[in-house]
Amino acid sequence: MVPSKLVTIVAEPVLEEQLVSELHQLGARGHTVVPSRGAGSRGMRATDPPGDGVRIEVVVSDVVADRLLDHVATRYFPHYAVIAFVSDVQVVRGEKYV
Amino acid sequence: MVPSKLVTIVAEPVLEEQLVSELHQLGARGHTVVPSRGAGSRGMRATDPPGDGVRIEVVVSDVVADRLLDHVATRYFPHYAVIAFVSDVQVVRGEKYV
Amino acid sequence: MVPSKLVTIVAEPVLEEQLVSELHQLGARGHTVVPSRGAGSRGMRATDPPGDGVRIEVVVSDVVADRLLDHVATRYFPHYAVIAFVSDVQVVRGEKYV
Repeated sequence: MVPSKLVTIVAEPVLEEQLVSELHQLGARGHTVVPSRGAGSRGMRATDPPGDGVRIEVVVSDVVADRLLDHVATRYFPHYAVIAFVSDVQVVRGEKYV
Repeated sequence: MVPSKLVTIVAEPVLEEQLVSELHQLGARGHTVVPSRGAGSRGMRATDPPGDGVRIEVVVSDVVADRLLDHVATRYFPHYAVIAFVSDVQVVRGEKYV
Repeated sequence: MVPSKLVTIVAEPVLEEQLVSELHQLGARGHTVVPSRGAGSRGMRATDPPGDGVRIEVVVSDVVADRLLDHVATRYFPHYAVIAFVSDVQVVRGEKYV
């Protein structure tokens, strides 16, 4: 088991391709995308109608997590209703893959 | 980065609109809903066929998390196969939004 | 609130039925499945096209979590692009269900 960070980013679907590409460029080696719907607090009012979104997850090292979150905050937060959070996870590694 | 709580609630789709409305009334300022399927342990047997569900996430303060979970336990657990859990997350805030 | 483990497994859709059945046999009493898409690092190159997947979640005790993760690592990692990770969660229990 390897201590890692689970970074979750919720964004508009139009941003998915660009975001995923940037996450890989910045060090993520895999990602999972799940279509979602919802309403965010960032630049939205609670009374705004819910919209479609994508929930993107990556499991990365502490260093890469910081890099990804800095990138998202700097490049997306000023312009888009993106939400990003991180939590601690333990990742299972098979012996062949350690 | 702001220490926060990620509250996850899995419920029947028919409850989504009401639950989301109540979560916002109780202090959530955003939410993410993902359609799911599965089988729960609450009031169900492992042999029951899996059913459709919704997986609702909100990122909130400790105080709001407690309020939401109390509400769900009190209002939904006696009558519905709802599952709710909470974990610690760090939420990224852009400078403009701190 | 009961301290528990949230086990997340991301796998190819063809493995869903078998994996879910095995998770229940090994002690999980409920599960949530969400269709996903993505690219994994396990046996894949970052340039591989993203594929469909399933994101399977179970909330279980520490003991059952270890059992599930051992099983997945032993049985699936050598042959499939499966990712598995675990995090700490607090599960809400209604009084009737403690």
